[in-house]
Amino acid sequence: MTKKTTDNLSPLYTYQEGMEWNPVEKVIMERRSIRNFKKKEVPDNLIKRVLEAGRFAPTAGNTQPWKFIVIKDQALIAEMERATVQLSKLLMWFVDYNRNAFRRVFLAPYTKFMTRLMPNKLHPIPFNLLQQIAAGKTAAYYNAPVMILLLIDKRGIGNPVLDVGICGQNMVLAAHSLGLGSCWIGMITVLMMNPFWRKKLGVQSPYELTDCLVLGWPKGDYDGEVEREVQLVEWIGADGVKRIERLGV
Amino acid sequence: MTKKTTDNLSPLYTYQEGMEWNPVEKVIMERRSIRNFKKKEVPDNLIKRVLEAGRFAPTAGNTQPWKFIVIKDQALIAEMERATVQLSKLLMWFVDYNRNAFRRVFLAPYTKFMTRLMPNKLHPIPFNLLQQIAAGKTAAYYNAPVMILLLIDKRGIGNPVLDVGICGQNMVLAAHSLGLGSCWIGMITVLMMNPFWRKKLGVQSPYELTDCLVLGWPKGDYDGEVEREVQLVEWIGADGVKRIERLGV
Repeated sequence: MTKKTTDNLSPLYTYQEGMEWNPVEKVIMERRSIRNFKKKEVPDNLIKRVLEAGRFAPTAGNTQPWKFIVIKDQALIAEMERATVQLSKLLMWFVDYNRNAFRRVFLAPYTKFMTRLMPNKLHPIPFNLLQQIAAGKTAAYYNAPVMILLLIDKRGIGNPVLDVGICGQNMVLAAHSLGLGSCWIGMITVLMMNPFWRKKLGVQSPYELTDCLVLGWPKGDYDGEVEREVQLVEWIGADGVKRIERLGV
Repeated sequence: MTKKTTDNLSPLYTYQEGMEWNPVEKVIMERRSIRNFKKKEVPDNLIKRVLEAGRFAPTAGNTQPWKFIVIKDQALIAEMERATVQLSKLLMWFVDYNRNAFRRVFLAPYTKFMTRLMPNKLHPIPFNLLQQIAAGKTAAYYNAPVMILLLIDKRGIGNPVLDVGICGQNMVLAAHSLGLGSCWIGMITVLMMNPFWRKKLGVQSPYELTDCLVLGWPKGDYDGEVEREVQLVEWIGADGVKRIERLGV
């Protein structure tokens, strides 16, 4: 490890009150989750650049608790898509209480109980998405030409999931700066319920998969401005006085 | 929500084989965890720019499962530092079996058991850091002029910790592009063990704190090139053939 002094650490863009977004901030602000891709191939070297951005992410104790799996095989991605639809249908058979009166009476208490056990996973938004995937109304992986599975090494320090979030966002921003589109896909966890797929993709202990990225050249429409909540930031000033700063108004 | 077409989504930098790092990649690659700060104040508006980068991070179902707390009060940060040292000492009293022969005989089995229960938290690296903090050899928050606590909203979809990792990395990269230095501090969890501090800082259910950022103008030496592991990336090519790509050689 070499030592450098901060004299060499010149910022790319010196902060001035009221300045425009610099290119880094611009990519951060203008990045959108892309769910529609061209059939055009993504060169291997470009994917490697994206991976390299992830590799240089900071991690707790520099443990780099991860493993990357790149999938460019369209047949395999299509197979994963079909398997995810099937698993979503199966899941929906167990928890979708709203399909008929019988289910509303007999399934609702069970689903409520399950939702108590897994509030984050059976939240209305993923529940609805799962329903759409099961019904064939949306594709789980958006027919992307490239998938990057971001595996967590459970032996990492503190919270390896956090480190993988940091790492993946480095990849996302590098990708967008180079003209690629990307989207985080948490739905891959549905596929991971099946041991066959865990084994097939090499997701074995000490590794675990909670999220992945799809990647490709963006096509057609995308969500322009996705609203963000106004953030009520608690702000404890230099004078020690607590106030609330409203961000985004 | 407005719709835009990808015609407007022009990349900042068009990919060409063998091109130099673009400014976004440059910030990603050259960012270092900064642990030494100038006494110079960080303007409120600059902190808000950094927060804004976090606010625009992608999250599962756009739920934005977080809350930010900014601390600029130097007296409060110093108080947090002292409390963290005290708590580290207390923790070390319970688990540091290596101080004398008596402890090696009677404490080691207990510590081993605890390490089994919490392998990620009692990993040798944080164990060692905790020891250093308890001995006053390093500061937990590096006397930074600004702290941003990144709270997780436990009601988020899927894995809110991942979303907060993504959000925090947006902040880190925006900060570095503007000349600020930053460091992720997982050690804040030690302070969070004390209900007094949870209440004082407003870390109450449904919010939880697993990590925070310290921010400031970098000073003096920093770790120049921190080695990264060579990544053995599993690569399933377009032809369906599995191979191993070595990244970083």
